[in-house]
Amino acid sequence: MQQNQQVILLIHCEDQPGIIAAVTDFVHQHGGNIIDLDQHTDTVRNKFYMRISWDVEHFDLNTNEIEQRFAKLLAERFSMNWKFYVTGKPQRLALFVSKQLHCLYDILGRWQTNEWDVEIPLIISNHTEAEEVASKFDIAFHHLPITKENKAEQEAAQQQLLEQHSIDLVILARYMQILSGDFIDAWRNRIINIHHSFLPAFPGARPYHSAFERGVKIIGATSHYVTEDLDEGPIIEQDIVRVTHRDDVESLVRKGRDLETLVLSRAVWKHIQHKTLVTDNRTIIFN
Amino acid sequence: MQQNQQVILLIHCEDQPGIIAAVTDFVHQHGGNIIDLDQHTDTVRNKFYMRISWDVEHFDLNTNEIEQRFAKLLAERFSMNWKFYVTGKPQRLALFVSKQLHCLYDILGRWQTNEWDVEIPLIISNHTEAEEVASKFDIAFHHLPITKENKAEQEAAQQQLLEQHSIDLVILARYMQILSGDFIDAWRNRIINIHHSFLPAFPGARPYHSAFERGVKIIGATSHYVTEDLDEGPIIEQDIVRVTHRDDVESLVRKGRDLETLVLSRAVWKHIQHKTLVTDNRTIIFN
Amino acid sequence: MQQNQQVILLIHCEDQPGIIAAVTDFVHQHGGNIIDLDQHTDTVRNKFYMRISWDVEHFDLNTNEIEQRFAKLLAERFSMNWKFYVTGKPQRLALFVSKQLHCLYDILGRWQTNEWDVEIPLIISNHTEAEEVASKFDIAFHHLPITKENKAEQEAAQQQLLEQHSIDLVILARYMQILSGDFIDAWRNRIINIHHSFLPAFPGARPYHSAFERGVKIIGATSHYVTEDLDEGPIIEQDIVRVTHRDDVESLVRKGRDLETLVLSRAVWKHIQHKTLVTDNRTIIFN
Amino acid sequence: MQQNQQVILLIHCEDQPGIIAAVTDFVHQHGGNIIDLDQHTDTVRNKFYMRISWDVEHFDLNTNEIEQRFAKLLAERFSMNWKFYVTGKPQRLALFVSKQLHCLYDILGRWQTNEWDVEIPLIISNHTEAEEVASKFDIAFHHLPITKENKAEQEAAQQQLLEQHSIDLVILARYMQILSGDFIDAWRNRIINIHHSFLPAFPGARPYHSAFERGVKIIGATSHYVTEDLDEGPIIEQDIVRVTHRDDVESLVRKGRDLETLVLSRAVWKHIQHKTLVTDNRTIIFN
Repeated sequence: MQQNQQVILLIHCEDQPGIIAAVTDFVHQHGGNIIDLDQHTDTVRNKFYMRISWDVEHFDLNTNEIEQRFAKLLAERFSMNWKFYVTGKPQRLALFVSKQLHCLYDILGRWQTNEWDVEIPLIISNHTEAEEVASKFDIAFHHLPITKENKAEQEAAQQQLLEQHSIDLVILARYMQILSGDFIDAWRNRIINIHHSFLPAFPGARPYHSAFERGVKIIGATSHYVTEDLDEGPIIEQDIVRVTHRDDVESLVRKGRDLETLVLSRAVWKHIQHKTLVTDNRTIIFN
Repeated sequence: MQQNQQVILLIHCEDQPGIIAAVTDFVHQHGGNIIDLDQHTDTVRNKFYMRISWDVEHFDLNTNEIEQRFAKLLAERFSMNWKFYVTGKPQRLALFVSKQLHCLYDILGRWQTNEWDVEIPLIISNHTEAEEVASKFDIAFHHLPITKENKAEQEAAQQQLLEQHSIDLVILARYMQILSGDFIDAWRNRIINIHHSFLPAFPGARPYHSAFERGVKIIGATSHYVTEDLDEGPIIEQDIVRVTHRDDVESLVRKGRDLETLVLSRAVWKHIQHKTLVTDNRTIIFN
Repeated sequence: MQQNQQVILLIHCEDQPGIIAAVTDFVHQHGGNIIDLDQHTDTVRNKFYMRISWDVEHFDLNTNEIEQRFAKLLAERFSMNWKFYVTGKPQRLALFVSKQLHCLYDILGRWQTNEWDVEIPLIISNHTEAEEVASKFDIAFHHLPITKENKAEQEAAQQQLLEQHSIDLVILARYMQILSGDFIDAWRNRIINIHHSFLPAFPGARPYHSAFERGVKIIGATSHYVTEDLDEGPIIEQDIVRVTHRDDVESLVRKGRDLETLVLSRAVWKHIQHKTLVTDNRTIIFN
Repeated sequence: MQQNQQVILLIHCEDQPGIIAAVTDFVHQHGGNIIDLDQHTDTVRNKFYMRISWDVEHFDLNTNEIEQRFAKLLAERFSMNWKFYVTGKPQRLALFVSKQLHCLYDILGRWQTNEWDVEIPLIISNHTEAEEVASKFDIAFHHLPITKENKAEQEAAQQQLLEQHSIDLVILARYMQILSGDFIDAWRNRIINIHHSFLPAFPGARPYHSAFERGVKIIGATSHYVTEDLDEGPIIEQDIVRVTHRDDVESLVRKGRDLETLVLSRAVWKHIQHKTLVTDNRTIIFN
């Protein structure tokens, strides 16, 4: 491996004594130097969660060897759910959008200014509003309008495009279509959506209208992994902004836009840094 | 009236041209100098909201005269809902508590340090935990335990105590009993409750448990005027705090306490400054 | 004037009795219906501040007439500083940038998605990094590198470009050059800068390095009108984000970027809505 | 040791490979089960920071044995700065106050409601305002007024009281006196102060006046360990609140009070949980 690269290892399992000692000993024996370790035991659920990263400068195993030896020595012994990543290879994002483009512009800005080390080869939309911006940024754009009749067919086309472009993560950047269970299953914990309310308050459509009617003093946005239950997926990030009686629905929508872009982008950032872990429909977000 | 006193006037009605000109001319003609005016028209609902305050140093009407002349000249003409207050007289608060006393301690601290210009002659509880602190601060304490059978009777006793102590505002400082419609009616827009969640998320009992189960990244608290519909009253103030997977229910409860005290105290502060106005089950909170 | 247009009037002067009555009577007499009025008297400085807006549907004065009559009847009488605006005409922005383009992308996104009703005909830079994005969005780009020797000359060229493009507001979107007193004078209260710290903490260069050294737990950003005293201009908007010991300088810079874009954009939004007023090197920001 | 007790170990040293493996192996070999581990390496400064906690149910070393074996086996080997704590024994706090009592009331409330598992045997003040509240809560109160002449003598008296009451932590809860270098030295990293500004902005006296003059849009508060350099000690916690032109100095002071109590209390909470570590005049605050 190259200098400056890191291995990141995510583990969750039933809590048992000795896991950390065993894992850190494994890293140490093979010449890795640990940079960051964030571990927590949920004593109520008896669950062990850990993210550990080490530099590979003097690490003497390659990717395949890690895979094999770790599985054999440790993963089986502790019945771990585990996954490791080697940094340095940009992740490939596909953006799904409908008519509202503020999240799209925000993400493209982060990519263009190299804030995110990612590649964005593909934009898919059920509308045509994003076509021009896709062309400006030389990104393949596919217009796949969805009806009840063609939904299965269009999702198949989407799936094919995702594979063809070697996509790692699907971002629903204000994509106003419900995905099928099959699609979600194929991309489990690799589809991030932004919902324009502070879930579980105001799920479903038109949350800003509901917030206006209820007279709340704060509105929010929620990013989550997509599951079969609409707006019920594991929450990655939330944030809020204050509103007053001077804010009509249009003003709530305007204030909400900044929330949506921020909350979605923070979730994507956490994901591409491998700082998210999903268990029991909840996320563990490491520091 | 005395120097440094102000008159505060709250108005809401259907929007019509000329209201502000008429009101401010009235103030000016009688020698009042306006200190602050916060007006907004809700163009969707065609509603006019205004709070105006003026100093009384050269104002040539007394309280009765304001009442009569304003009603005759302006309130009738514009079909106003209106109310005015003269500053300088401490408002009298009754605190209703159960077993958890953090909001109680917070409010007593604000009173003792003269942050709030109020009097607190009365604490009512369905438990006895607060008795000692009431005695420390020389406040009358009444233990009125509530059962299904004695509820009407105990509420009558509460009402009598409130009248006897000339109470202006009832604060439910973590009072775990539901008030009857009659009681609420008698104290319409003069009972403030604190709910320990970010309403409308997690209404009802045990919101911190629900928040933990759902895996939210933010918890909140909501203060509101009490209405017949539990947790559905007009919201006065809300705030939030971030939580992580490291926070178990006990930790959420602990973090929530600071929220509850702050959000309740901010609501009471707005109320005693006459900066709240209720209409259509929503509040207008003036600056 | 057209339907749905509003007149917005900003006033500040020494406080005197009768100003609001006189102004609102003027509006009413000429058929204007007030939508929003936000007035405050600074009793310490004896200063009167007001923003008032009314619809023009039945208003019987045109722009010239407002100018003349208001000046004659009211402005002179109360020695007002005043300015009025009629909504509906997009303001024209010039963006000054250097090498970092995150604020630029953010602003272009708000323009393209019609969040802001503005025109952006001109980007000026002392570097060439922004040239490609300017071309993507069909905006005139002028590369005007600055040295000690050519500064006066280049500023003259900038001034000419601003006039030629009928610019209303100059935005220093991470423009790393100090403007001369003459330039600032010509654009008094019409140049908005973003400083990447929570002023007055960490003025000057490399604030994120200083924040890291000091070990602060919160970093900030500050947008302000540009004055001769660097980082001392009237503050329009500030915001902050939490940081920990896990954030190195690079991470502070990354977190700071979101702050900078948000805080700059909120300031521009307040400005183009005519909700800012400058007096005594401080801003009044209306609701 | 008792059930439900935990050992908490804080370590910082030069980074070297193998520290975590060695420490966690030590815990595991002696029957401890790790509950939480938060480790980070500052790669810029090459510093290793760790907080680790384990339950003692099956741990086979007592306090003395931990001390000896850990020192011998691990601390020397890695040249560690280290400290361990066993939970379960309430820490003893001394409160130093002057005339303003809001932080005092806040802390007493947390103690009385058992939010904090602490003992508060001692209040020291250079004024008499707090005497009555101390008496209400049955806390020893010592009035030690400070002049230039008697300062050394009074500090000696303070020191004696702290020892006599077996104090673990000194809280300057708005204590308006500068402590001598000797006093600070004796209580290094065990005195927490609250400064009423967002440091490093507005150090020194009257920060709210300075904030008002500068026209900031946000005010803050900062809690820190006390060092010889006034307002320059390692920051533990900071927070902010929004202000507007409607806030005069008195209003800033009022809003600031809530900040001060919260920021001070959060710092104390982190300290008594052994989640703070000081190095190079900066704090590491563990999760």
